[in-house]
Amino acid sequence: MMTPTRRSLMKLGAAAAGLAPASALAAQAPDRRLGYAIVGLGGYADVILPRFAECRHSRVTALVSGSPEKARRYAERYGVPERGLYTYETFDSIRDNPDVDIVYVVLPNGMHHEYTLRAAAAGKHVMCEKPMANTAAEAEEMIAACRAAGRKLMIGYRCHFEAANREAMRIARSGEIGRPRVVTAEHGFTIGDPAQWRLNRALAGGGSLMDIGIYSLQAARYLTGEEPVEVTAVEATDRSDPRFREVEDRINFQLRFPSGALANCVSSYGSNHNRFRVVGDKGWVDAEPATAYSGNRLRRLKDWRTEDHPVPEAPQNQFSAQLDHLSQCVMTGVEPIVAGEEGLRDMRIIKAIYLSAREHRAVSL
Amino acid sequence: MMTPTRRSLMKLGAAAAGLAPASALAAQAPDRRLGYAIVGLGGYADVILPRFAECRHSRVTALVSGSPEKARRYAERYGVPERGLYTYETFDSIRDNPDVDIVYVVLPNGMHHEYTLRAAAAGKHVMCEKPMANTAAEAEEMIAACRAAGRKLMIGYRCHFEAANREAMRIARSGEIGRPRVVTAEHGFTIGDPAQWRLNRALAGGGSLMDIGIYSLQAARYLTGEEPVEVTAVEATDRSDPRFREVEDRINFQLRFPSGALANCVSSYGSNHNRFRVVGDKGWVDAEPATAYSGNRLRRLKDWRTEDHPVPEAPQNQFSAQLDHLSQCVMTGVEPIVAGEEGLRDMRIIKAIYLSAREHRAVSL
Repeated sequence: MMTPTRRSLMKLGAAAAGLAPASALAAQAPDRRLGYAIVGLGGYADVILPRFAECRHSRVTALVSGSPEKARRYAERYGVPERGLYTYETFDSIRDNPDVDIVYVVLPNGMHHEYTLRAAAAGKHVMCEKPMANTAAEAEEMIAACRAAGRKLMIGYRCHFEAANREAMRIARSGEIGRPRVVTAEHGFTIGDPAQWRLNRALAGGGSLMDIGIYSLQAARYLTGEEPVEVTAVEATDRSDPRFREVEDRINFQLRFPSGALANCVSSYGSNHNRFRVVGDKGWVDAEPATAYSGNRLRRLKDWRTEDHPVPEAPQNQFSAQLDHLSQCVMTGVEPIVAGEEGLRDMRIIKAIYLSAREHRAVSL
Repeated sequence: MMTPTRRSLMKLGAAAAGLAPASALAAQAPDRRLGYAIVGLGGYADVILPRFAECRHSRVTALVSGSPEKARRYAERYGVPERGLYTYETFDSIRDNPDVDIVYVVLPNGMHHEYTLRAAAAGKHVMCEKPMANTAAEAEEMIAACRAAGRKLMIGYRCHFEAANREAMRIARSGEIGRPRVVTAEHGFTIGDPAQWRLNRALAGGGSLMDIGIYSLQAARYLTGEEPVEVTAVEATDRSDPRFREVEDRINFQLRFPSGALANCVSSYGSNHNRFRVVGDKGWVDAEPATAYSGNRLRRLKDWRTEDHPVPEAPQNQFSAQLDHLSQCVMTGVEPIVAGEEGLRDMRIIKAIYLSAREHRAVSL
């Protein structure tokens, strides 16, 4: 029963990955829960941890933190046993913990590479937050390490599991709005505290593009279902602003796709943006907010009228669906719809975006 | 009384031109109507002609058409006397018609240059539709010809006279949304009949950028109140499409402004777009539709909520206000807020956009 499904999933390829039949996969997975270790108890761990309550195939069995006190506090709240608590120094002994199947790396970007390699060396599957790494070279090493260890690697692209985004993908690729001609995707927020890790080049790997602009890049790719062949970018950063001594503020970019579709993307640490629109030759679909943790809203242009478009009911929120997807992939042997290779594609495009902005020229991909 | 007003208008310069106190100018103009000759009775003349009814300082006194039958029909409808009817052959004798103060060139782009020069030679002031000409070199000749003849030259940038656009300019430049950081401006429509003049390079001077993308360019400039210093552009045209044998379909572009503001602009003949948004570091204002003949709507982000923003009541519609503005300028000796120099600025930027797309590199301005 599994082979045709696996094959059909594979056949979809990267471009159509976001539309893979996740529910079919769920049906095949045994009725048990794999154990996750959460590495890094920062702000995003606070978003992830409560979502295990809605998972069918995932539970949290370990926590890794620099602060034993914090780890114990979280352990109590989320029911993690004492033997599941690790520091960064003791992390490698996680190999001996049979309760841990998957390591979820929720650390600053600059630490993704190291902890993915250490997790794979410990024989664990890996969920790694986006951006996958600081560089494409690191991303390649991470993929190779997980492959060599025979372990899955998935990137935390939650929007692929979010109902509004999945519906927008469906509409954009269905022909209902004709052929996509122009995508606009804008993501940004006004960043605050200059001392945070996001503004430290070694920890963040870059500025707004690595952190929030990557959502614009992802949207352009998953809405069109295509890979860009050319990128042009322009950066605007006030280096006298204490927030932007090391990383860029705004870096906007344009993508050209093989079908002739073009994308205009915004990436900003200096202004608030969260929307996209796909305009085909017969109408459009848009979202605002587009990639929020909840409350994303769709609209369509239909018969020359703008209408709210209902977001289909989803069995799970995006976070739980993402966690369960990797568990299901591990149990069934199927590749995640947003595997390491998907993260690597973004890293290569991001590299081209930075190059284009720096050299004031278009860069072919 | 006139000198300080003229000076203060001049001082505003190109960037702030859109915010010139048009009402003050109207108050100074004598209570009479200058006579307009409409050159070209195509679709846009059908939009302009009915608007004279709401003018205080303008009336239509002549029509120029290749079809005497059509001219007579329009003359009857709009009360133009027989002596005000011209063909393209007899056009130059308009110099002897004292009822005509201003010639409004509503011809295909490729004829703007010739008819502006002939109008100036006939001693008439000129209103010329946008884009001003096919090339920046032609635009420079038009400005020089009108200056040598001691006549005003104004470009038909109606949005500078439209209430929603004026309000968006005011908000964007007032500091109410903080410093503008990102402008997005999208204009396009799915063009039909391959035989129309807009798809003929000699008549149109180019494709979507000359016709509809120029609204995105204008919006980025009048919303920021700045002149771009760098442009990057990417074009997508299917040359096998019978509509696009001679001119471009989509040409999207990014602008960098001296303040650090960036604009992402769409120009399309393959998809429908009509909106802009200015995002500052403290909020945003947007419009959709943004530059329609009527019904433009504004919204603002305020205290993290998106609200409809009322468009202030305006004494006149954008077309009548535009017509009267030139009449008032002629009567008071003041320069139009969108003089020939404003058209030339766009032509130079358009040239840079085409160059950027062709050479796949950023172009400095």
